[in-house]
Amino acid sequence: MCQLLGMNCNVPTDICFSFEGFSARGGKTDDHSDGWGIAFFEGKGCRLLLDDKPSVTSPVADLVRRYPIHSTHVIAHIRKATQGEVALKNCHPFQRELWGRYWVFAHNGNLPDFHPQNMGFYEPVGNTDSEKAFCIILETLREAFPHGKPPLDKLNFVLRQITAEIAKVGVFNYLLSDGEHFFAHCSTKLTYIVRQAPFAAAHLIDQDMTVDFRELTSPSDRVAVIATTPLTDNEVWTTIQPGELLVFQDGLPQK
Amino acid sequence: MCQLLGMNCNVPTDICFSFEGFSARGGKTDDHSDGWGIAFFEGKGCRLLLDDKPSVTSPVADLVRRYPIHSTHVIAHIRKATQGEVALKNCHPFQRELWGRYWVFAHNGNLPDFHPQNMGFYEPVGNTDSEKAFCIILETLREAFPHGKPPLDKLNFVLRQITAEIAKVGVFNYLLSDGEHFFAHCSTKLTYIVRQAPFAAAHLIDQDMTVDFRELTSPSDRVAVIATTPLTDNEVWTTIQPGELLVFQDGLPQK
Repeated sequence: MCQLLGMNCNVPTDICFSFEGFSARGGKTDDHSDGWGIAFFEGKGCRLLLDDKPSVTSPVADLVRRYPIHSTHVIAHIRKATQGEVALKNCHPFQRELWGRYWVFAHNGNLPDFHPQNMGFYEPVGNTDSEKAFCIILETLREAFPHGKPPLDKLNFVLRQITAEIAKVGVFNYLLSDGEHFFAHCSTKLTYIVRQAPFAAAHLIDQDMTVDFRELTSPSDRVAVIATTPLTDNEVWTTIQPGELLVFQDGLPQK
Repeated sequence: MCQLLGMNCNVPTDICFSFEGFSARGGKTDDHSDGWGIAFFEGKGCRLLLDDKPSVTSPVADLVRRYPIHSTHVIAHIRKATQGEVALKNCHPFQRELWGRYWVFAHNGNLPDFHPQNMGFYEPVGNTDSEKAFCIILETLREAFPHGKPPLDKLNFVLRQITAEIAKVGVFNYLLSDGEHFFAHCSTKLTYIVRQAPFAAAHLIDQDMTVDFRELTSPSDRVAVIATTPLTDNEVWTTIQPGELLVFQDGLPQK
């Protein structure tokens, strides 16, 4: 299966440190070497970098590690293929437009018995279960709210329903964002941490690397990092419960 | 106004040489410094790299110059803003999905009197005339062929109609591709060259750089390069006539 990494912050932040540890899992400390991808929102705009090479050797991943792109909403994925061959078209995150906003989606899991009949407006380009599920989610939201993005509680209600529906047929951990809201659904495995003042130093699990956030932050900064498994070994990560769909905004899960 | 660069080939080829000269126009030999972007198709998959920094200083452009991504359909754009502020959401090429394929579009020109009323399914994310025109094109194709991509002659007929319609209200040079076909429309300024055996050396206009294609190609290779103005000063480029919509396949314009 794959691994997910997400970040949601109250000020644009670079993901270099977390990505350093995460990308090591794409062929070095773990075997998720069937491609990778990362999406950075900057306002309504979105940068989506994809590569079907392992993230440890990809020149594009090297760029991400070295070039600090600042963003408030980031979704990254390293792939271990279950359905769909190793190819660019099957790399997550996937992107589509809905209500005049880009939506980005990455999935960890497997939906072996997911065979929706009518794809409606959004059609998958590749042949993964994940892209199919993303298309169905957007289709469902569009049908429920044809005139534009609704208030969060209404959106959340419909998203929960369709998520629960899809999660019945397999493992469906996902990250989803439109650059305004950041959704994280746990089906089996997903964890997060909120870093805020007082900041401390953090040490990566997958690389012997420490960052002292006191030197890099201002007191009002807040950053949530969401990942399949914890990325650091000296911080307390919160396990998201199976069936939970969290919405992050400004670096905090909303209640 | 902006500048366009496209490439269509019969075998996956890197665009490093052409991009070297082209990207120099983004702030060095010319003043198109309001962002840039490039899309590479690999099969049905698409890599879209965007940056709102000038292409001469962008670390992402540096990656493209140094990392030979091989593709048969490439569309690049450097921006000089006319409508829409300098922002990632306004960088070309734009991408949407239609008929289970990604479509990519970049525009050179200005459509000051283009105010379509009903955007239909596809909504612009940014606020350029270009993205609006792209949405209208896809909407028109989708309405004309709701069940999937039609044969090229039928597609071409509808595309010509909507293109002519939009071109009435301004300057509308564009490149459009779905990774299978490559469309190039000239409204005022667009030129191309087909490189094939016997290959020779080419010298860039914007950088003092020469490539001897004899050393890099095999006899059956064929590459069409399409650009706003010629990129080399020792080759004969063909001017596309105003009003012409060419379709390239396997490095050749189709008749």
